Amino acid sequence: MFKLIKQEGHARRGEYATPHGVVQTPVFMNVGTQAAIKGGLSGVDLKAIGCQVELSNTYHLHVRPTDTLVRDMGGLHAFMRWDGPILTDSGGFQIFSLSSLRKIKEEGVYFNSHVDGRHIFMGPEESMRIQANLGSDIAMAFDECVGIPAERSYAEASCARTARWLVRCKEALEKYTSEEDAVNPGQVLWGINQGAVFHDLRIEHMKRIAELELPGYAIGGLAVGESHQEMYDTIEAVEEHMPKDRPRYLMGVGTPGNIIEAVARGVDFFDCVMPARNGRHGHLYTWDGIINIKNEKYARDEQPIDPACGCHVCRRYSRAYLRHLFKAEEILALRFSVMHNLYFYNSLMSRMRQALEDGDFADFRRRYAEKLDKRI
Amino acid sequence: MFKLIKQEGHARRGEYATPHGVVQTPVFMNVGTQAAIKGGLSGVDLKAIGCQVELSNTYHLHVRPTDTLVRDMGGLHAFMRWDGPILTDSGGFQIFSLSSLRKIKEEGVYFNSHVDGRHIFMGPEESMRIQANLGSDIAMAFDECVGIPAERSYAEASCARTARWLVRCKEALEKYTSEEDAVNPGQVLWGINQGAVFHDLRIEHMKRIAELELPGYAIGGLAVGESHQEMYDTIEAVEEHMPKDRPRYLMGVGTPGNIIEAVARGVDFFDCVMPARNGRHGHLYTWDGIINIKNEKYARDEQPIDPACGCHVCRRYSRAYLRHLFKAEEILALRFSVMHNLYFYNSLMSRMRQALEDGDFADFRRRYAEKLDKRI
Repeated sequence: MFKLIKQEGHARRGEYATPHGVVQTPVFMNVGTQAAIKGGLSGVDLKAIGCQVELSNTYHLHVRPTDTLVRDMGGLHAFMRWDGPILTDSGGFQIFSLSSLRKIKEEGVYFNSHVDGRHIFMGPEESMRIQANLGSDIAMAFDECVGIPAERSYAEASCARTARWLVRCKEALEKYTSEEDAVNPGQVLWGINQGAVFHDLRIEHMKRIAELELPGYAIGGLAVGESHQEMYDTIEAVEEHMPKDRPRYLMGVGTPGNIIEAVARGVDFFDCVMPARNGRHGHLYTWDGIINIKNEKYARDEQPIDPACGCHVCRRYSRAYLRHLFKAEEILALRFSVMHNLYFYNSLMSRMRQALEDGDFADFRRRYAEKLDKRI
Repeated sequence: MFKLIKQEGHARRGEYATPHGVVQTPVFMNVGTQAAIKGGLSGVDLKAIGCQVELSNTYHLHVRPTDTLVRDMGGLHAFMRWDGPILTDSGGFQIFSLSSLRKIKEEGVYFNSHVDGRHIFMGPEESMRIQANLGSDIAMAFDECVGIPAERSYAEASCARTARWLVRCKEALEKYTSEEDAVNPGQVLWGINQGAVFHDLRIEHMKRIAELELPGYAIGGLAVGESHQEMYDTIEAVEEHMPKDRPRYLMGVGTPGNIIEAVARGVDFFDCVMPARNGRHGHLYTWDGIINIKNEKYARDEQPIDPACGCHVCRRYSRAYLRHLFKAEEILALRFSVMHNLYFYNSLMSRMRQALEDGDFADFRRRYAEKLDKRI
């Protein structure tokens, strides 16, 4: 399902087919955790900002409105009116970051909901059942995301368990998608590599999960406390052992610079809440670096956020107006900022794809990898 | 500038020309107090929801971002990118409802800003200067809005002062709009009738301000504590004395039923924060009455908010999805609700205009005046 179109060093220009359309890679997935994009963006807005893949969250949707409700409403695509590809995170990361009183056992995890405290059990089969109910195009494996720094012995045991869980995930999803009333019979499972920053653990785990010949593999458990260099080194170490004919997804990363560096190291898929979160704080991306729109110097600035940007906001509104909306605490400030920042991330990917096609990626990387992360 | 097209009883179907286009009346003006519509709606969205006139606020914009800034940015139309007609409230109502430590003198009002507490003086000339800087199409007179219940003696003195202020408003706005660098040379002044619920005061005041032959007149100081019947009676009493060839604007009113009843009594222009505020609380208008979308019974309801509604939200999304957005506290819930409710109000006006053209207004009123205000 993954077609490698061109390569420059480790960087890859590819295409990945899903039941809801073909994704051009490298790609940034736009995060709609609870079946809605932060800042008041709708499915229609997603098209306008150049989104290719929407990402929703198994844990959040299981808790509210529940995956059985979403299933009864025709699945996530119908529920939120987004007809493009959807990837669902497995819930693993959220269980480890949001829930309280969790107990990890071989069968899965016992924890309390962060919303109402009720007891929930989730294991590989439950996560797959939920994702099958949601009907995403790509379901992610149920894994344990080990924080960094991590004890080597703990990381090792966790990796082994995550690998065992993956076998169960595969069996479960195959079963659920072949049911007669499956929401999305074409839904596939991607595996997730773990191992903290222990390269040998990462590699061993990667080799083991590659044997399952899944249609895609993610690198999980990064951007959770390690330095950028540690992250890049870990990607380099594990990338060699990832199947070349399958897409690679670096979960939860990152700044524009991080993404450029990861593309340079062979990654194809990304997601991150950063552009939306930064937007809500008035930190806006431009091709010259990051501006803080609340800054006094923009009070009478008639230019758009970024004159080089073609988004809805930059084509119509001034920095002065956007700054006013922030100062006046209008919701429109959030909407415009998130819209611009997500458009910027999607454009960043589109420009990288173009650079790869043109054989100019090294130049693009030199020009932008540091610049885009700087506050100006 | 006002053309009366058709009448049915006291109800009027008309047209009012402004420098930014012709307004079909009766009309509901969509409130963007701080140069932005609550719920994250933009100028582009205003077109989509059928808005004819946008209403912004002199007091709020004077405080933040300041009217001189808006003027430097080319006026309100350019600043917020809305090229249709704009009416600006004079600031009078907000001074009396929001500010603290206000002192009313013949020259104007001394008060403290509700944002940063700084001392501000606003009189008729200041209000006109600000509105000229904003460059709205219709500037409202600077008046005192007397609360209800009111002492007769106080209401009488206040009415007299408001009438004296109106003469100064007229002179000031004529001066400012004839300046060479006027933002909107075609800006006009509308007078505001006051007098609480004392019919004789209302009538006397109306007669007095009618002598100034302004292009429009508002009924102010209602919907501030009196009963609906008192409001209707006051409109009936004063309406007879309002010029027939000028539009009438009932400020800050009201429910769909209130608006239908006021149209029946000869009113042409309306504005109210109610549809946006109700939307934010999940109270949504339908042609069968008001629903509370947070209600459990909508959890799996695949219907749109109102199957009879043609708004962006009703054409695409289910009640189940909207309820989920509210429960998950997503900003998109506010956006969709405000969008729907404002579209509903604009449609209500459009259907009344059609009924008036068809000579069916009495029937429309019978059918909807009570029904639309009921919670179902």
